[in-house]
Amino acid sequence: MKIKPLGDKILVKRLEAESKTASGIFLPEGAKEKPQQAKVIAVGEGKVLDSGERAKPTLKKGDTIILSKWGGTELKLEGEDYIVMSEEEVLAVVE
Amino acid sequence: MKIKPLGDKILVKRLEAESKTASGIFLPEGAKEKPQQAKVIAVGEGKVLDSGERAKPTLKKGDTIILSKWGGTELKLEGEDYIVMSEEEVLAVVE
Amino acid sequence: MKIKPLGDKILVKRLEAESKTASGIFLPEGAKEKPQQAKVIAVGEGKVLDSGERAKPTLKKGDTIILSKWGGTELKLEGEDYIVMSEEEVLAVVE
Amino acid sequence: MKIKPLGDKILVKRLEAESKTASGIFLPEGAKEKPQQAKVIAVGEGKVLDSGERAKPTLKKGDTIILSKWGGTELKLEGEDYIVMSEEEVLAVVE
Amino acid sequence: MKIKPLGDKILVKRLEAESKTASGIFLPEGAKEKPQQAKVIAVGEGKVLDSGERAKPTLKKGDTIILSKWGGTELKLEGEDYIVMSEEEVLAVVE
Amino acid sequence: MKIKPLGDKILVKRLEAESKTASGIFLPEGAKEKPQQAKVIAVGEGKVLDSGERAKPTLKKGDTIILSKWGGTELKLEGEDYIVMSEEEVLAVVE
Amino acid sequence: MKIKPLGDKILVKRLEAESKTASGIFLPEGAKEKPQQAKVIAVGEGKVLDSGERAKPTLKKGDTIILSKWGGTELKLEGEDYIVMSEEEVLAVVE
Repeated sequence: MKIKPLGDKILVKRLEAESKTASGIFLPEGAKEKPQQAKVIAVGEGKVLDSGERAKPTLKKGDTIILSKWGGTELKLEGEDYIVMSEEEVLAVVE
Repeated sequence: MKIKPLGDKILVKRLEAESKTASGIFLPEGAKEKPQQAKVIAVGEGKVLDSGERAKPTLKKGDTIILSKWGGTELKLEGEDYIVMSEEEVLAVVE
Repeated sequence: MKIKPLGDKILVKRLEAESKTASGIFLPEGAKEKPQQAKVIAVGEGKVLDSGERAKPTLKKGDTIILSKWGGTELKLEGEDYIVMSEEEVLAVVE
Repeated sequence: MKIKPLGDKILVKRLEAESKTASGIFLPEGAKEKPQQAKVIAVGEGKVLDSGERAKPTLKKGDTIILSKWGGTELKLEGEDYIVMSEEEVLAVVE
Repeated sequence: MKIKPLGDKILVKRLEAESKTASGIFLPEGAKEKPQQAKVIAVGEGKVLDSGERAKPTLKKGDTIILSKWGGTELKLEGEDYIVMSEEEVLAVVE
Repeated sequence: MKIKPLGDKILVKRLEAESKTASGIFLPEGAKEKPQQAKVIAVGEGKVLDSGERAKPTLKKGDTIILSKWGGTELKLEGEDYIVMSEEEVLAVVE
Repeated sequence: MKIKPLGDKILVKRLEAESKTASGIFLPEGAKEKPQQAKVIAVGEGKVLDSGERAKPTLKKGDTIILSKWGGTELKLEGEDYIVMSEEEVLAVVE
């Protein structure tokens, strides 16, 4: 099933939280923070501007992004969890 | 009765929730999630822009879309349940 | 008394709820849903755009429209009940 | 005292509620609805648009308008009650 | 001390409430309504439009205006009470 | 430490409340009102307009302004209290 | 891990609160205020304007900025605390 988000929306999948800290210490399950990184799975065609044209999306499929802990709409597709959000809700991209 | 939504609104009909999981296990009735897919039944002529022209709709009749669980207005037509919503409230289209 | 709504507003009159279901069963009075269809009685000249021009109204006198259950302002004229609403609050038109 | 409303504002005076129904029955004082008609007393020069020009007012002095029951600011001038409201708050004009 | 309001703001001074009614009856102190008229003391240079230019103010020093009972910011200058408000909050001007 | 406010923001320092009234009577400490005047210490480069250009600031360093009692963000720099606010929150300038 | 904020967002790192006052007195740990200065780590490409172009960011990597005490989204990257905020939420830059 191929999904195309609308407008300036993107479809992302959260990445697993890291299981050890920056200094190399392994974290017990409960100590992991809710993961804030996600992989971009699909990108819309861009927001419609007042001129009627579309603003070109900044993100592309495969980008790793930083999410805020809240925001976006959770979506279950074929048993997997995804999030649909607008580009504006994305904090940053990992280069 | 033929219905034409106004502006950037669309008329959709929810699809039945799948009765088995991705891995093939049949779900009892109560375990089904509220279905998040819908079929587009009719599409408006598009939103009026500040220039006075209309933004061309992205969706067309027959598209399968992903809805958020909330949003849109429920509508009963000839005993059937529909939802009217604006294109902006649609998360994604299934290609 | 002839009424001309202002701007993008329209004057409508609710249609009576249908007294039987799609399958032909007559409904007792209390089982009728609040009617969601209305007849357009009069239409304004259209919304003033930022350019100073008016957006042409989509609806015209005599159209049958689908209302949401809420929205619009109820108005009593010569003992009859009407609703004044903006075109944006109309869900769809019956063609 | 001559009053000139500012911008898209208008000064109106409520008309007395009708004392009989459409079918000619006289109403006791308490059965009268709060009157929804008003006479336009004065009109502003029109709203300033983003372009810096003014949108020409739709209403003119002497028009009879339909008000919603709420909205506008009540104003007492020389012992008489008036309402100042913007044109957008007017529902319709009686032609 | 000369005061210049900013943008579309104006500086006004409330006028004393009239001490008799329209029909000439003198009012006891407590029966006076909160005065709704004010004298314009100073006017700003006008609101900055999206184009970067300024909308020319409608009011000028010396105008008598009608205020709503609420709105504006009270200001004490050299022991006297003034109100600073934007032109949009003014209901009408007395000609 | 030299501070440059961003966009349409300005950095101001409250002036001491006057210790006597307009008629020359000295006020005890508790009777002083919270001072409403401030000195402009630094001004931003101006707000970015929709056109991408900047609106030129109205205020300049050294201006004495009238503040509303609320609004702005308090800021401590090298032990001194300042306020950062946007030009729109300034009521008037003392000429 | 290199992080690129989106649009008009910036990534910043709070600076440690100063441990002595302007007059040189050392502060005990509890007396330190929450630090209001931060170092800009990365800057987005700028906000998309209505014209479809981007407003050039005012800040650049390495700038020291003044934050308000609230605002922005806290972010943990490789065990370090950062804040992502839009340029509009920055009060001033230290020159």
